[in-house]
Amino acid sequence: MQKVDSLVSARWVIPVEPEGTTLSHHTVAIRDGRIIDCLPTAQAEQQYQADRHQQLATHALIPGLVNAHTHNAMSLMRGLADDLPLMTWLQDHIWPAEGKHVSADFVHDGAELAMAEMLRGGTTCFSDMYFFPEVTGRLADRVGMRAVLGMIVIDMPTPYGSGPEDYLDKGLALHDAWRNHPHISTVFAPHAPYTVSPQWLERIRVLADQLDTRIHMHVHETAGEVMESVATTGQRPLERLDRLGLLNPSLIAVHMTQLNSDELDRIAETGVHVVHCPESNLKLASGFCPVHEMQHRGINVAIGTDGAASNNDLDLLGEVRTAALLAKAASGNAAALPAHRALRMATLDGARALGLDEEIGSLTPGKYADLCAIDLSGLESEPLYNPVSQLVYTSQRDKVSHVWVAGRLLLNERRLTTLDEADILARTRAWQARIAPEAPHD
Amino acid sequence: MQKVDSLVSARWVIPVEPEGTTLSHHTVAIRDGRIIDCLPTAQAEQQYQADRHQQLATHALIPGLVNAHTHNAMSLMRGLADDLPLMTWLQDHIWPAEGKHVSADFVHDGAELAMAEMLRGGTTCFSDMYFFPEVTGRLADRVGMRAVLGMIVIDMPTPYGSGPEDYLDKGLALHDAWRNHPHISTVFAPHAPYTVSPQWLERIRVLADQLDTRIHMHVHETAGEVMESVATTGQRPLERLDRLGLLNPSLIAVHMTQLNSDELDRIAETGVHVVHCPESNLKLASGFCPVHEMQHRGINVAIGTDGAASNNDLDLLGEVRTAALLAKAASGNAAALPAHRALRMATLDGARALGLDEEIGSLTPGKYADLCAIDLSGLESEPLYNPVSQLVYTSQRDKVSHVWVAGRLLLNERRLTTLDEADILARTRAWQARIAPEAPHD
Repeated sequence: MQKVDSLVSARWVIPVEPEGTTLSHHTVAIRDGRIIDCLPTAQAEQQYQADRHQQLATHALIPGLVNAHTHNAMSLMRGLADDLPLMTWLQDHIWPAEGKHVSADFVHDGAELAMAEMLRGGTTCFSDMYFFPEVTGRLADRVGMRAVLGMIVIDMPTPYGSGPEDYLDKGLALHDAWRNHPHISTVFAPHAPYTVSPQWLERIRVLADQLDTRIHMHVHETAGEVMESVATTGQRPLERLDRLGLLNPSLIAVHMTQLNSDELDRIAETGVHVVHCPESNLKLASGFCPVHEMQHRGINVAIGTDGAASNNDLDLLGEVRTAALLAKAASGNAAALPAHRALRMATLDGARALGLDEEIGSLTPGKYADLCAIDLSGLESEPLYNPVSQLVYTSQRDKVSHVWVAGRLLLNERRLTTLDEADILARTRAWQARIAPEAPHD
Repeated sequence: MQKVDSLVSARWVIPVEPEGTTLSHHTVAIRDGRIIDCLPTAQAEQQYQADRHQQLATHALIPGLVNAHTHNAMSLMRGLADDLPLMTWLQDHIWPAEGKHVSADFVHDGAELAMAEMLRGGTTCFSDMYFFPEVTGRLADRVGMRAVLGMIVIDMPTPYGSGPEDYLDKGLALHDAWRNHPHISTVFAPHAPYTVSPQWLERIRVLADQLDTRIHMHVHETAGEVMESVATTGQRPLERLDRLGLLNPSLIAVHMTQLNSDELDRIAETGVHVVHCPESNLKLASGFCPVHEMQHRGINVAIGTDGAASNNDLDLLGEVRTAALLAKAASGNAAALPAHRALRMATLDGARALGLDEEIGSLTPGKYADLCAIDLSGLESEPLYNPVSQLVYTSQRDKVSHVWVAGRLLLNERRLTTLDEADILARTRAWQARIAPEAPHD
């Protein structure tokens, strides 16, 4: 008998790699935070001795979900302004509220609410773009969640800093602080081509090369963004980024709803990663990201919720379902983005976009034990003909029962183990009272 | 003090009529199954004495959701075949499975599973199109759910009957059996223009006139349907229906994803009702129903889930969210289908399509007390700036706590009061074993 830290046995194990595999009655063996084996449960019980053995009789065990684009602290503005176009929503509602309220405390409390929601929905890793990322980092360290922190850069001053130079100084300090952390890393996060000047984008490219770091940016989110760029510079934003040397495998381009066929080819050729945020794109009427055409060209497409102020949740499982449904309608092909592939987008392809696919994204021995268990039994989930179909098209996040990051149990029977729900709610309500002093419809 | 049967007090009451109203700390008073008053809670406590008083401290109380297009018994085929176009899905998977398994027992067990799922999701009324509707009717009568039963007609023989004449005989018997029932009614349900011959559609139109009954039909679901009709008859299906005299306020046209501007005008002019099934249309890549353009023309648009075999759930709250998101992207207008209007589609507009808006669809004194309570507290639902936004964009069906139909409590703290969950699940599993004898991925 070999000694391991824990065994997780599930009715089904969906390892994501190899693609299309559903294993029945399998067990994942974990030691030192990593998966050391994935084998039939009967065999595991003969081969391994564990301190803890979690039995999940009606569940599917999958890699933890990777939310590749968040603005965590914006959870405190969930539902503050709806049914508005992107620029009205940003300029008349979100930016003024941010100018007034954003602080280290705001980011702490908002990010904590976001992490609680994400863990309860099966998300183990997020890539965040927001102010005061050092606060989010310290929180992720304490909570045990896997985090990619964006070193935000934007031309305008904000409560976080005076301008690009200040943001970059703070970003580099952040990068130093989290170097070699087991579950926290950093990427550059220039907001968008229309809010960061070319000289700063060039500087970021040079720094990203030197530090071997990725660049996370909103790109071609709306037709308006593209038109304005053409009107003011004569070039589409992607063309400008290309000239600045930014189109390469370090770029994580978020949204990408406005693309012509040449641009799709160029993205494929240069190895740019795309993050698809279907619900935000729908809600802000930004357009349709051509996911099927991208995947057909071999472009890696991850998935993100965007912030809760424009979604209005951080429910990656729901986002996977929306992505799988929408890709079919947008491409006119009901076979587009089938269930197994949709699940891969939310796990391995997300990890690949973030440069973490050697460490997470599939239940492959050697990778971290970032896991999510989803109960496939119950009135809403049965009958059950195909576990992966049920995961993607039928299951909702209230069926997520257990979540582990690097082998550590962070959600146990839907209870958070490293966060205090009542305390988070109390602080959320205090922020609500500050941001909108009248209780709703009193 | 006036005596009533029950009072339901909620933190917010959203009556749907008048439009855009959110009432704070209000109470609905119920007598003999009907709403007799909706007033501030403090006042209600002085004015009414009730046998039961339900206090919902953190909830929104809304009219019960109206699912305007279901194939209930198909819940037993949930997830049986995915990621396929409509005709492949129907001809190679669904129709063969139906031919082999559909029976009165199948319909009973499938419809019971569907009703359990719908009640747990806040749906109080459904309009069903499926074989053996008398079985679904008896079940709805016993369970206490509001049902509109489709008198199905289709050219081909099925386990339910030998052909149109037989279906119509059975339908008319059904109509007689449920005449004057307080919560069950009937409509004609010819399957689609491409599966029911013109002579039968004409016969149905005459009968519908005589009996003052509506006609529930799939229309312009896919581009293929329209093209095939043009190829074989020289006319688009709507044009054929128009010549047959079917375009009038009795027609409930489901899907309607393929419409030109003239057709939209004609639909508006003739008062046809539309049922939008966004998730089914996405999943089968059928196209986009132009909801915003329809509402702009004054066309009444209800909402439906379609069957669980093509959705893969009967979650109307989720469908409302998808509809609200999709209408924005499909119209390129982020202000399209705002939250209040989306909620109205799923309640009052649904009732209107079914000809039931005098009886249900809003919390108006005189109407039946068909109610749904949704808890707006918790990590996934807060902060809370606007209760209707939270209902539409943030809440998931696991937050539905209580459901009443005609004043009778059918869901109490998420427990079904007239259905046995364990028994339903046992029968669902038996059907699963019959339909797909191998357990999934064993």
